[in-house]
Amino acid sequence: MADAPRANAVVAQSGGPTAVINASLVGVIEEANKHPEIEDLYGALHAVVGMAKGQFIDLKKLSADTLEQVAASPCSALGSSRDKPDEEYCARILEVFRKRNIRYFFYIGGNDSANTAHIINRMADDIDFDIRAFHIPKTVDNDLLVTDHCPGFGTAAKFEACALMGDDLDNRTLPGVKIDVIMGRHAGFLTAATALGKQRDDDGPHLVYVPERPVSMDKFLGDVDSVLKKLGRCVVTASEGICDADGVTWAKKLAEGVETDAHGNVQLSGTGALADFLAGQVKSKLGAKRVRADTFGYLQRSFAGLQSEVDVREARWCGRHAVQYAMEEDSGSVAIKRLGNGADYKVELFRTDLSNVAEKTKPMPDEFINAEGNGVTDAFIEYAMPLTGGLPKTEHLGNYPRI
Amino acid sequence: MADAPRANAVVAQSGGPTAVINASLVGVIEEANKHPEIEDLYGALHAVVGMAKGQFIDLKKLSADTLEQVAASPCSALGSSRDKPDEEYCARILEVFRKRNIRYFFYIGGNDSANTAHIINRMADDIDFDIRAFHIPKTVDNDLLVTDHCPGFGTAAKFEACALMGDDLDNRTLPGVKIDVIMGRHAGFLTAATALGKQRDDDGPHLVYVPERPVSMDKFLGDVDSVLKKLGRCVVTASEGICDADGVTWAKKLAEGVETDAHGNVQLSGTGALADFLAGQVKSKLGAKRVRADTFGYLQRSFAGLQSEVDVREARWCGRHAVQYAMEEDSGSVAIKRLGNGADYKVELFRTDLSNVAEKTKPMPDEFINAEGNGVTDAFIEYAMPLTGGLPKTEHLGNYPRI
Repeated sequence: MADAPRANAVVAQSGGPTAVINASLVGVIEEANKHPEIEDLYGALHAVVGMAKGQFIDLKKLSADTLEQVAASPCSALGSSRDKPDEEYCARILEVFRKRNIRYFFYIGGNDSANTAHIINRMADDIDFDIRAFHIPKTVDNDLLVTDHCPGFGTAAKFEACALMGDDLDNRTLPGVKIDVIMGRHAGFLTAATALGKQRDDDGPHLVYVPERPVSMDKFLGDVDSVLKKLGRCVVTASEGICDADGVTWAKKLAEGVETDAHGNVQLSGTGALADFLAGQVKSKLGAKRVRADTFGYLQRSFAGLQSEVDVREARWCGRHAVQYAMEEDSGSVAIKRLGNGADYKVELFRTDLSNVAEKTKPMPDEFINAEGNGVTDAFIEYAMPLTGGLPKTEHLGNYPRI
Repeated sequence: MADAPRANAVVAQSGGPTAVINASLVGVIEEANKHPEIEDLYGALHAVVGMAKGQFIDLKKLSADTLEQVAASPCSALGSSRDKPDEEYCARILEVFRKRNIRYFFYIGGNDSANTAHIINRMADDIDFDIRAFHIPKTVDNDLLVTDHCPGFGTAAKFEACALMGDDLDNRTLPGVKIDVIMGRHAGFLTAATALGKQRDDDGPHLVYVPERPVSMDKFLGDVDSVLKKLGRCVVTASEGICDADGVTWAKKLAEGVETDAHGNVQLSGTGALADFLAGQVKSKLGAKRVRADTFGYLQRSFAGLQSEVDVREARWCGRHAVQYAMEEDSGSVAIKRLGNGADYKVELFRTDLSNVAEKTKPMPDEFINAEGNGVTDAFIEYAMPLTGGLPKTEHLGNYPRI
């Protein structure tokens, strides 16, 4: 490997925000400040859009205070984009890179971002413009390959756990059926995380449905009925991506049903549709009383003031390591390896090839889902709990002996 | 006033939960433990249901640790009920009171609970069974009369502020129109609280709609369009109880529209309907891109691990004062008086008659709503900010000078 070039660097944030994607950004900035090989460090505004248009800010000018405030803030401080760059788009980006002498490219994002970094790196090779391209993982969905887990997931998992700890107490307060629809179209990690706060045998969520396990309406209603009969109440969490026995998502079936029935102003494609549909089924088919549904929405990834300490530390560390790797290697994605668990939770970082991460997704492993396909296993709890950085404890008095 | 009788006491929690209703409960317990006049302290399970059926637990047996855990937990540790007791129901309750020698009644709840306490107290007088009935205010809606503000509101306001601080950063990250529907059918305090976290001129929410100000669809769309043109994005919060220019709530209009159009499985009465409808209007009428909607739901009142320190302290204090008042007086509701604001925020508690609080609700005062009817005033911020116990700061880099 040739020596690291003396040149400028760019860092950008892509895809949906997380609570710690800014911690990774700050990790890149603070490490870049240590390496004289990196002259200017540009922050690209709105990811590939800013890279293609040359819309940059100077990240070496930021004060230490600003950096700490950015690291503590959710969402992408530089903005993001949903653009999927084609070859021409990437060529424009490389033109900007060349003009600005940008030879380091740090891209914080999911598997699409790893792919973009990979493509730009290869295209640069083709035109003999040597750049070093590194991907820094982030996603609330936790669905990237190679890495043990993704920065961003730990905080989102903490949010889900705290939300369901509260929601279960709410359901104890005024019993009935409560259905919560959770982010995650393809991977169920985030929905599974709703079970992390369970402290007592009868705590909810009592049923947890992930996209990895199809569930028919009959099975779903049977499960709810059985919990209702046992506890007199039932708290359910379901991924937005749960599918019917035939593998088609319920969201898709709903949208199709509505297209057929549509009458101008009625539309069921919005965010609340799946939750409302499931609640309607429980009401009409089981005759259950007090059925409520919530769709958690964007709060899951953006709530201000809520971070997992472990998550934010690791995210920042990933940013720093990307810069360190770039001093030695041509390209790569930063990945996390778990060295110890529980009280001995410990990780180390390593570099993996961009192609190992690009475009691929990881579903929940089988050992994290119970045999019934309606709950999580202890193995999942052991896996995910350390990432939350710890959860609050709650107490209620409903199970105390009566006098 | 006669001396306080030596007898048993009951405490119960009614209505929807809040994050600090348990702090009020613990306040009652710790103060009751100091007064030998109160022999046993019963906790009634599920409010009037437990009182009518004699379903009690012994609150004097709880350890100090348990009390602190309960005080830190959201929702009603004793459970609640939506039953509205009629005269016969109240008579059954009084029978239980008499049988158990319960002469003190502490009821934590909203205006309905104040009314129940009032009715039971009067009915007890009628049968010459002297009881002392006290109401301890709680509601996330902040809509009780007499008191400056209600325990429960401060934490819910903090939740809304943190949610919108994050949501606004999310909307900066991926610009578009975001619409959030907030709890509050009749009073807009909670929706107004979404504006508490605004730090910069262009921070969202850019538009805030409360039930106290009707808004036509034309006005709403015009407002959104104007913000979009100025900022290229728009974050909107709206109470679930917002109404059209004719005073009819949008939720009601929607539900009626759907009853007409209904085709079996299509139902728009769920929680996501209003948000999805507003988003649909913005999409179809303004042609706006990336329009998203969330309905915050029960998280607003139950999220575990999130409390305003000020709120939790005042809630506990209200519980303690109710017991102190009961040593001197026949009945009453605990109310909060503000003595200083801002950095000098300070309150004292006082007793008011149950009839002053029972059944009545307080809307947002005019001076808290801007002239346009689409935002809050500085007076509201000054009023509500201290109740949150302080908010996190956030930072983003989108407005930094480009290079």
